[in-house]
Amino acid sequence: MSTSRQIEIWFEFGSPYSYPSVMRIEDEAAKRGVHVAWRPLALGPIFKNLGWQGSPFLEQPQKMAYMWRDLERICARQGLPWKKPSVFPRGCLLPLRVATLAQDEAWVGEFCRAIMLRHFGEDRVIDDAQLVGDVLLALGVAPGDTIATAQSEPVKQALRAQTERGRQLGIFGGPTFFAAGEMFWGNDRLDEALDWAARA
Amino acid sequence: MSTSRQIEIWFEFGSPYSYPSVMRIEDEAAKRGVHVAWRPLALGPIFKNLGWQGSPFLEQPQKMAYMWRDLERICARQGLPWKKPSVFPRGCLLPLRVATLAQDEAWVGEFCRAIMLRHFGEDRVIDDAQLVGDVLLALGVAPGDTIATAQSEPVKQALRAQTERGRQLGIFGGPTFFAAGEMFWGNDRLDEALDWAARA
Repeated sequence: MSTSRQIEIWFEFGSPYSYPSVMRIEDEAAKRGVHVAWRPLALGPIFKNLGWQGSPFLEQPQKMAYMWRDLERICARQGLPWKKPSVFPRGCLLPLRVATLAQDEAWVGEFCRAIMLRHFGEDRVIDDAQLVGDVLLALGVAPGDTIATAQSEPVKQALRAQTERGRQLGIFGGPTFFAAGEMFWGNDRLDEALDWAARA
Repeated sequence: MSTSRQIEIWFEFGSPYSYPSVMRIEDEAAKRGVHVAWRPLALGPIFKNLGWQGSPFLEQPQKMAYMWRDLERICARQGLPWKKPSVFPRGCLLPLRVATLAQDEAWVGEFCRAIMLRHFGEDRVIDDAQLVGDVLLALGVAPGDTIATAQSEPVKQALRAQTERGRQLGIFGGPTFFAAGEMFWGNDRLDEALDWAARA
């Protein structure tokens, strides 16, 4: 699925550990001359297909409690704003569809970072046309047309198809990276995946 | 549970990601002037108490397949021997009891590394008196007496009590580190935990 000197990031806006990866992947990739391919997917169907009710954190409260503290430490080290979401998991279908629509656009990275910051840095509801529209406007992208297209059947279908492709690739959580055919799971593997891509 | 400039490593010989941590923790701790407190525990009872049948990897074959590849990459980077265990999870009660008995002895680190190397570097059966005896002998420790004591009721009870203490501390997998009261889960957090301990 990967070409040389490219890294794919498979992620969802509801995925906590996707936050720090989404925030820094483009800067880190640029340092290594690696292209970032954005691959938004819906983790809910992935989890259900694996026989889980939803996020594995929901069934493992001890691990979830640890995860929030771990993420807080990661954000502190990375200098990222952090506000624990008051709802988990939080719906993110609209921004996910916009990211799918825009995944090859120059503004996709900035869009993803803006949504992630509102979710994990500000505890905002992100599955919201007003919030997504404001983000688009700040990027100089027409909100009305973009949101309408994002909610059209072809884009819904594109997200479904991408999610299914992710499942077939063996993805079981976010973020997942592919570099030169090699799979790396989790924010902790971002640098290793980038190095792998750079050596390809 | 931690004192200043000390790191606790809670681990099991059957735990794959405990292998790379056990192998390097003493060297890394020494560089930072941090004392290592060895805390062997039995993960089976921990998992069962969380409502799982056993290792979460057993219920998540995709994640388990990924884990083996990930561990192979980690071993390659760390220069560690790697041979995928032909049995998972592998029993480890006898060496676990010896480690419990010896957790404050000068030779405990060397013992743990030797057992881990035989498990994940050589795919050997480690819940075995001959193998454990050979390891003890190489360390200059009397095998017969040590194994007999390890199988005595007080040591069995000490391991049970330590496991229960780990559960109460919120442990849900291995390796888990505690440094100045802060919990860190997973081989990926070893350096962060050591730095935390060094700053304490």
